[in-house]
Amino acid sequence: MKKPRGRVTLPSEQNFLNETKELMERWGADAIRDSDGTKLDDEIKKLEAKIYTTYFVARGHNDFAAEHMDECQQLYLMSEFNTATAEMLEIDLMKGYFTEQVRPDYLHDPKKYWEVVDRTSGEVVNTADWEVDKETNRVVIAKAVPWHEYTVSFLVYMIWDPTQMYNHITNNWGDKPHEIPFDVRQPHANQYMSSYLKQWLKDNPDTDVVRFTTLFYHFTLVFNNHGKEKFVDWFGYGASVSAAALDAFENEKGYRLRPEDFVDQGYYNSSFRVPTPAYLDYIDFVQHFVAEEAKKLVDLVHESGKEAMMFLGDNWIGTEPYGKYFASIGLDAVVGSVGSGATLRMIADIPDVRYTEGRFLPYFFPDTFYEGNNPVIEANQNWLTARRAILRNPVDRIGYGGYLSLAYKFPEFVSYIEKVTDEFRDIYDKIKGVKPYCGLKVAILNAWGKLRTWQTHMVAHALWYKQIYSYLGVLEALSGAPVDVCFLSFDDVMNDGVPEDVDVIINAGDAGTAFSGGEYWANETLVATIRAWIHNGGGFIGVGEPSAYQYQGHYFQLANVLGVDKELGFSLSTDKYFVTPVNEHFIAADLTRFDFGESMKNIYALSEETEIIEYSDGEVHLSSHSFGAGRAVYIAGLPYSEENTRLLMRALYYAAHKESEFHQWHASNMYCEVHAYPTIKKMAIVNNSMAEQTTLVYDGDGYSRKVTLEPSEIRWEDFSDER
Amino acid sequence: MKKPRGRVTLPSEQNFLNETKELMERWGADAIRDSDGTKLDDEIKKLEAKIYTTYFVARGHNDFAAEHMDECQQLYLMSEFNTATAEMLEIDLMKGYFTEQVRPDYLHDPKKYWEVVDRTSGEVVNTADWEVDKETNRVVIAKAVPWHEYTVSFLVYMIWDPTQMYNHITNNWGDKPHEIPFDVRQPHANQYMSSYLKQWLKDNPDTDVVRFTTLFYHFTLVFNNHGKEKFVDWFGYGASVSAAALDAFENEKGYRLRPEDFVDQGYYNSSFRVPTPAYLDYIDFVQHFVAEEAKKLVDLVHESGKEAMMFLGDNWIGTEPYGKYFASIGLDAVVGSVGSGATLRMIADIPDVRYTEGRFLPYFFPDTFYEGNNPVIEANQNWLTARRAILRNPVDRIGYGGYLSLAYKFPEFVSYIEKVTDEFRDIYDKIKGVKPYCGLKVAILNAWGKLRTWQTHMVAHALWYKQIYSYLGVLEALSGAPVDVCFLSFDDVMNDGVPEDVDVIINAGDAGTAFSGGEYWANETLVATIRAWIHNGGGFIGVGEPSAYQYQGHYFQLANVLGVDKELGFSLSTDKYFVTPVNEHFIAADLTRFDFGESMKNIYALSEETEIIEYSDGEVHLSSHSFGAGRAVYIAGLPYSEENTRLLMRALYYAAHKESEFHQWHASNMYCEVHAYPTIKKMAIVNNSMAEQTTLVYDGDGYSRKVTLEPSEIRWEDFSDER
Repeated sequence: MKKPRGRVTLPSEQNFLNETKELMERWGADAIRDSDGTKLDDEIKKLEAKIYTTYFVARGHNDFAAEHMDECQQLYLMSEFNTATAEMLEIDLMKGYFTEQVRPDYLHDPKKYWEVVDRTSGEVVNTADWEVDKETNRVVIAKAVPWHEYTVSFLVYMIWDPTQMYNHITNNWGDKPHEIPFDVRQPHANQYMSSYLKQWLKDNPDTDVVRFTTLFYHFTLVFNNHGKEKFVDWFGYGASVSAAALDAFENEKGYRLRPEDFVDQGYYNSSFRVPTPAYLDYIDFVQHFVAEEAKKLVDLVHESGKEAMMFLGDNWIGTEPYGKYFASIGLDAVVGSVGSGATLRMIADIPDVRYTEGRFLPYFFPDTFYEGNNPVIEANQNWLTARRAILRNPVDRIGYGGYLSLAYKFPEFVSYIEKVTDEFRDIYDKIKGVKPYCGLKVAILNAWGKLRTWQTHMVAHALWYKQIYSYLGVLEALSGAPVDVCFLSFDDVMNDGVPEDVDVIINAGDAGTAFSGGEYWANETLVATIRAWIHNGGGFIGVGEPSAYQYQGHYFQLANVLGVDKELGFSLSTDKYFVTPVNEHFIAADLTRFDFGESMKNIYALSEETEIIEYSDGEVHLSSHSFGAGRAVYIAGLPYSEENTRLLMRALYYAAHKESEFHQWHASNMYCEVHAYPTIKKMAIVNNSMAEQTTLVYDGDGYSRKVTLEPSEIRWEDFSDER
Repeated sequence: MKKPRGRVTLPSEQNFLNETKELMERWGADAIRDSDGTKLDDEIKKLEAKIYTTYFVARGHNDFAAEHMDECQQLYLMSEFNTATAEMLEIDLMKGYFTEQVRPDYLHDPKKYWEVVDRTSGEVVNTADWEVDKETNRVVIAKAVPWHEYTVSFLVYMIWDPTQMYNHITNNWGDKPHEIPFDVRQPHANQYMSSYLKQWLKDNPDTDVVRFTTLFYHFTLVFNNHGKEKFVDWFGYGASVSAAALDAFENEKGYRLRPEDFVDQGYYNSSFRVPTPAYLDYIDFVQHFVAEEAKKLVDLVHESGKEAMMFLGDNWIGTEPYGKYFASIGLDAVVGSVGSGATLRMIADIPDVRYTEGRFLPYFFPDTFYEGNNPVIEANQNWLTARRAILRNPVDRIGYGGYLSLAYKFPEFVSYIEKVTDEFRDIYDKIKGVKPYCGLKVAILNAWGKLRTWQTHMVAHALWYKQIYSYLGVLEALSGAPVDVCFLSFDDVMNDGVPEDVDVIINAGDAGTAFSGGEYWANETLVATIRAWIHNGGGFIGVGEPSAYQYQGHYFQLANVLGVDKELGFSLSTDKYFVTPVNEHFIAADLTRFDFGESMKNIYALSEETEIIEYSDGEVHLSSHSFGAGRAVYIAGLPYSEENTRLLMRALYYAAHKESEFHQWHASNMYCEVHAYPTIKKMAIVNNSMAEQTTLVYDGDGYSRKVTLEPSEIRWEDFSDER
């Protein structure tokens, strides 16, 4: 049997030809890429493989950029909060910022583009009452109200690309030039990006795939005066703004944005903020522009006979793959980093591209590949979490990054990846394009909806934060679960109602955030629509502070649906009698312990009709409640684990009144899962753990038999094998 | 030496003469009281002691009340929340209420006095769109908006006094008549209360002290359909309302109150709610009325040559001893129950009475006095917590309640109380009227200020709630500490600034509550005044969620003063570098462990200028920060304990920049305290624990020596004894 090949991308480097060939053979790679800072030898480019070449559009062209500093990218920044101790107040704009990254924009009139805000009264200070001292980068307010706090929102030029800066500082690149990011909205820059690409395409005949890293605007990444990260928002539009953009926006949308629309009290429109209509307009404006300009580049790539691939990160702002202009760009492929099942689905589910590629972990870097460490463990964990998601919807390719020579020194790792790549191709060949069995359809409801598909509660891409892990578990559990998942915004529900095929809505998040919904929950259309839908048989799961907004006697606006509310102190005078958990409950049937992560305090049941499933420390953490023909479940928090995946799955089936279907295509053992593909009559029984597992496996009719699986095993069976 | 006597009140009962005499002698009692349901024999009344007789003004007169049911007391109640599933919605008013306690008032036109509220839109439903069905106690809404929630706010008559009801139900009093509370605002009732008292005073010549239990309006206490407590608010004005009161209010204040001003979305103006101007007006209106009417009764008592004493509880609404009309009532005394140091100070600090009396624990009831239990333990604990407060400001008398015959069966208890009463008299004789040494003046800042002196964060009198104990520790610690304490409202600060002699302001509470302040913190006058005061050298301590109100880029509006804020999710994108606690700090110097009680999540330091004192689980729980010449301290929660008392004391001295004075009149051992009385040159060194303690005792100049104290010991020394 011929060794299978394809769907795998290798990084390579100089002076590594023979080993590259060997690894290509063993891993079945059919594409080779360079990495940031590495180049491929010509011999490698001649191998029988597609060649990916990293391409930077808006940085790495300092010859051009240095001559057009007025076309540099810009940012709106907010100064620190400054308390006036007298009528005269001087504000040091750059305090806490990194002068090597940003410098105030004095080319555009500060009186037009800046704003001084009294953060105590909330009022904008009259431009006549303050002056700019350009020498010292200060704003002097003449008539401050003593003991009020003031901030200045000011435009800066970003004179150093933040990703290159990070690498530069981290790796001590010394006097290597700082890459200056330029703004393709500007005339010279716009012209330059096309002409340069045209020439580059001619100069790189061996390149098959242009790997855009990435397009125009970096996510917001600002450094502090010590050259360390100060602000990072993977979704942030901060670096897309400019005086020109503001003027163009006014032209297109018919009104002018304020600096405050960007600095947002210093929160800079983090995706945790309920987006304002102005910010949503601005996102639309930028996405539209980015798509139009990106299409021009993609067209040039296509004209040269090459493919256009986009890296999902760095300068990806405006290209959101689930946004409404993405399809029009015409990209062939998107590649992104896979740190979890949810990030795999974020890539795999991208519509309107021919293929997607996941860059797997570990990165071939010395932090993992050092003597005495076994990189197989991280690779195995990464593969198991991703495989669950791949079995729902595979990416089309997988790849690795870093120094191939480093990985080559770990023969067990090389062998393990050989196994992974074979397993990936086997899965792909069997199920690509095949609709897996889904017992339910789940909608994640928040202020962002589809735009942030598989991207809720993220701050910096895939990093852990104390405030998010108890919610991220919801997406991670769903990413490999036998359910359809869609993402709905409150506006979707208000405009079009709940889609007919949805079984269960999930609203998960902290009060006031875009993911819970904040003031949206005071909207009568929204709550009436959701209540009606549940009452008519819909399922609802609230995690953390669902529907939270203090208004008209409830904190949870769906309190009477959920059967629980949160005690803020206002209702302490009302006796809370409902504290006794039920003896047993469908939702908790398989669990050995509860882990609500950060959990939620002071949740109480409203009546004896609330089924309390877990009660401890004087609080409800898990409960369910009927509302008409529907059901609602409350969960205090859901960090990702096998136990919590089971809890969520049972909660979904319970909320949907489909308990009787729970044991279809099901594994009794929480560390195993069953993925069924009815149209091809195949099923995969997987062991998601690194230990042997025995499980009952239930078929589509609910009949079960015992199966024992090796550590990490995936076992394929045809339905005819059943019973 | 003659056995000391006086300042002690005994309960007595029938057929208990000799034992009463014996206990009077041993405890030095000079007053005897009856209790609810017990009567005193004539022989007892002839003993050489003041006789207190319990007197009910507005209940216990069913002959009158039953003939004037239209003069019954009233309440505004809110129905349950009802979700409309169609345009027609029927609301069962009495669902969840106790028909033996309340009945809807159909005498007054519901269309005038009731309100149907759409709790989804927040709008009041037009009176034309609903009708009342008096037969079934239902309101029928004709044109409801489907899936909106509706409530009815309706007037009821309260036909059973809630305290008598509680005793009746608890003790199975069977067909004993239900005592009907009547409203002295009504003409017949008003007439009756005077004429009855006049006659009663004549009929009770042996009574020396009329113990009003209490006056007119019971705190809000509503029962559910199972005859169990449904809603209890020791501060609630619910039962003071009536159609007549509404009309009189309009007359006096020039505008009409809505039902919503009372039901308050179902929170009924709990003292945790930031009081509305309308509610404050109503409180003033009731207090004024109650004071005027109470004065008439007190005058009658005085005319008869007796004293008038008020029990601080039950029907005490409108008589608040720290309210502006209290002095005008002319009471001789107030008696209240002492469960802690804070409740002792609440009684002892009452101005404008000749004497105060604390009823100590344990109550002589079978729940404590049963075979095998040692009531001395509870008595000892109660005494130690109260003694700290007594040493700051003593009540003038102490007393006990319950069945004296029961206590008599426990000879060790009788001996112990003999010791307590002697110790109390000894303390009193030494320090009554003597100003103790106070190192600092502390102001508790909240929405209530002086009116709720020593009464913050209370729900039902002295009961434990999960949501309050982490704040109550502040008052409890202060109640026996060598500091002056005053209570300031936000309005006080906005109108008059911070009083000049205040060293430290404390703001403690959960966000949105009256104790933290809620929307008050968006008031620029308030925050500017406080900031200026701190900047000029004032101290500030925030506990829990001080100054919390999400506005203009801060959650804590004093974030830049405190040096910390709370992460709600909006600023996750901002890097939090300041996580390293200082090695040692004045505030934590004596502590062996930290206990923040319920604590507070997600508090982070704003800059390296914040001194982090405790950091764990990714959060700051204790920190301090300079602001100009002032200092602010943040504490995540402060349940009462000796350790936390020490923490608070050190925090106060640190915030006030008076660390150098901390070791004046001070005990190094946290279980001991030093109370100094400079004008009489005496000091008390006390052991607050039930174990032997050794401590350094510091004099007023900071010189120390070692002292060993017996369990619970109080040792008096003259200053001349020093050094």
